[in-house]
Amino acid sequence: MSDTYVIIHGAWHTGAEMEAVAKHMRESGHVVHCPTLAGNRPEDDRSTMGLNDAIESAVRFIEEKDLHNVRLVGHSYGGMVISGVADRIADRLERLVYVNAFVPLDGQCLNDLVPPHYVELFDSIAAQNNNAVMLPFPVWREAFINDADLALAQSSYAKLNPHPYHTFIDPISLKQPLAQLNIGKSYLNCQQDIALPHGLPWHPRLSERLGLFRLVECAGSHETWFSNPPRLAQAIIEAGRD
Amino acid sequence: MSDTYVIIHGAWHTGAEMEAVAKHMRESGHVVHCPTLAGNRPEDDRSTMGLNDAIESAVRFIEEKDLHNVRLVGHSYGGMVISGVADRIADRLERLVYVNAFVPLDGQCLNDLVPPHYVELFDSIAAQNNNAVMLPFPVWREAFINDADLALAQSSYAKLNPHPYHTFIDPISLKQPLAQLNIGKSYLNCQQDIALPHGLPWHPRLSERLGLFRLVECAGSHETWFSNPPRLAQAIIEAGRD
Amino acid sequence: MSDTYVIIHGAWHTGAEMEAVAKHMRESGHVVHCPTLAGNRPEDDRSTMGLNDAIESAVRFIEEKDLHNVRLVGHSYGGMVISGVADRIADRLERLVYVNAFVPLDGQCLNDLVPPHYVELFDSIAAQNNNAVMLPFPVWREAFINDADLALAQSSYAKLNPHPYHTFIDPISLKQPLAQLNIGKSYLNCQQDIALPHGLPWHPRLSERLGLFRLVECAGSHETWFSNPPRLAQAIIEAGRD
Repeated sequence: MSDTYVIIHGAWHTGAEMEAVAKHMRESGHVVHCPTLAGNRPEDDRSTMGLNDAIESAVRFIEEKDLHNVRLVGHSYGGMVISGVADRIADRLERLVYVNAFVPLDGQCLNDLVPPHYVELFDSIAAQNNNAVMLPFPVWREAFINDADLALAQSSYAKLNPHPYHTFIDPISLKQPLAQLNIGKSYLNCQQDIALPHGLPWHPRLSERLGLFRLVECAGSHETWFSNPPRLAQAIIEAGRD
Repeated sequence: MSDTYVIIHGAWHTGAEMEAVAKHMRESGHVVHCPTLAGNRPEDDRSTMGLNDAIESAVRFIEEKDLHNVRLVGHSYGGMVISGVADRIADRLERLVYVNAFVPLDGQCLNDLVPPHYVELFDSIAAQNNNAVMLPFPVWREAFINDADLALAQSSYAKLNPHPYHTFIDPISLKQPLAQLNIGKSYLNCQQDIALPHGLPWHPRLSERLGLFRLVECAGSHETWFSNPPRLAQAIIEAGRD
Repeated sequence: MSDTYVIIHGAWHTGAEMEAVAKHMRESGHVVHCPTLAGNRPEDDRSTMGLNDAIESAVRFIEEKDLHNVRLVGHSYGGMVISGVADRIADRLERLVYVNAFVPLDGQCLNDLVPPHYVELFDSIAAQNNNAVMLPFPVWREAFINDADLALAQSSYAKLNPHPYHTFIDPISLKQPLAQLNIGKSYLNCQQDIALPHGLPWHPRLSERLGLFRLVECAGSHETWFSNPPRLAQAIIEAGRD
């Protein structure tokens, strides 16, 4: 059985960093697309692009390829994007799979869902960089990719790109709560993910907003995309299958 | 070393669905019984049978076989039953093993321990089916057997039987708190069990009622009995041994 | 790459019980020391020795061997000790690794960080034994080494030594919060550790006091030092590396 997946990357990433996982999923017979969102392409103006640009670019990707029965996967910030896509073209989707990803309510922005010390950090970096935010390496190494060795932490960090800050502060507009959408919902929780602190965790704080959802878990950090692609690919398939 | 186990199934199950796990435990040299409780046998009247009938049928099973030093295992609703059995014939028991199972206080019923949306769901189904409740398939597939593929979710669902609703609303009578019983207590938590939501989890909310208890965990859903019998068998033995 | 580790044992242990894990770490090329703290040596007077004696003995060990860039590992009570060591000789340390260990604030003692029923238990045992406390075997077997079989639970218990109670009630003095120390911090959480109850857990309650820290987890009880030394050795290396 071959399912169609579209994987939406997180902040600072592009589709290219999702390819290691996608390759393992394709080996299991699935069709997997890894587009890069508007705002994270080399040519994009980080100072002006916002959440709606990112959502629209994902919608356009699915419509232009005329994809149906899509299992739409979002990682981290990608959860904001797949939520917006689902609100617009649910008829093309079979299931949403949130991978340690944000699940917003109508009117919320990403910064509403993270602890205050992140907002302060991002505010300060954005102010100095014309709205393009980067993550400091010590935070990446200790809290994002805590399961990798230093060499992998460094080589993966080198692939990141500055992220357009408007996508963190633009509120999302949703016509109905995600829990009411008549498609499947899964939450994949990497168990050692401390990119969000335990007082404001990914799961169950955000997963429970999905209503009836399927939980899948595997060992790994927020960046298991780099530290263990075959294991994450297996978990995504368990989360995305019927 | 050969230990004697009695496994008490959960709601909608019979002893037959416990046999895959029991088989693996027997291969490790143990004696394992899997009785079917009053209320879940084909001939039982679902409209009248209650919690006391179920408890008495388990007591009778142990007494008629004259079992001693029993490691009494209860799954889910079976936790209500083994709690009642322990209150009556603790002298025949060596240890209680709760497998994502309910641990009641004196006077509580199962419905006191689940979220309101389950009570509403069960109320409504029971009212339409002469007190025999079934679990809707989407809940089974997403929240009970989230670690299986669709084929196993369907084939296992086909084995379930309508459950007598009185067993969910009858309060249990306990002469003393379970924590004070002078036998061993273990709690086995399958880590991806979302049959209860995370706001009202199995563990530690219910496990801590056991006082000094042994925690054992393994990966798996509420229905690891179907999705991974050898792993669950190993975990039960680690929970049940001296 | 060879790193230098110093492992500080917990209450009732000596350095000898850390050697099984240390052996596996040495096989990966690291230098590993396992000193025994003042208070837990055979000749020590349990009635008078306190937390400061223990901390000073660890500082002295590091200074006398003139160790630098130390990855300082503390287990359980050992977390009190490594916190005090870091406050005094941070310049000799590369990183702190807490293994299900206490993380105190300035002025706190170990007993401030455990549930009241432990304090009552320890008070009562200390009063009867001239300030030397032992852990009752049932607590050890069910809540400390819940992942072992009975034979290992008994043989490991036989190696424990009475612990000087002053080390549990002496407040620690810290010149600055541990989170502000300019060295790496890691928290290694053994996932089935119920030596502390879930209402007052090791992680995240104590780990979050470290500020930006690296989380590493592995399966196992509070005493994975006995039940699974190779797995714990691997986890410590993942927690301690750059």
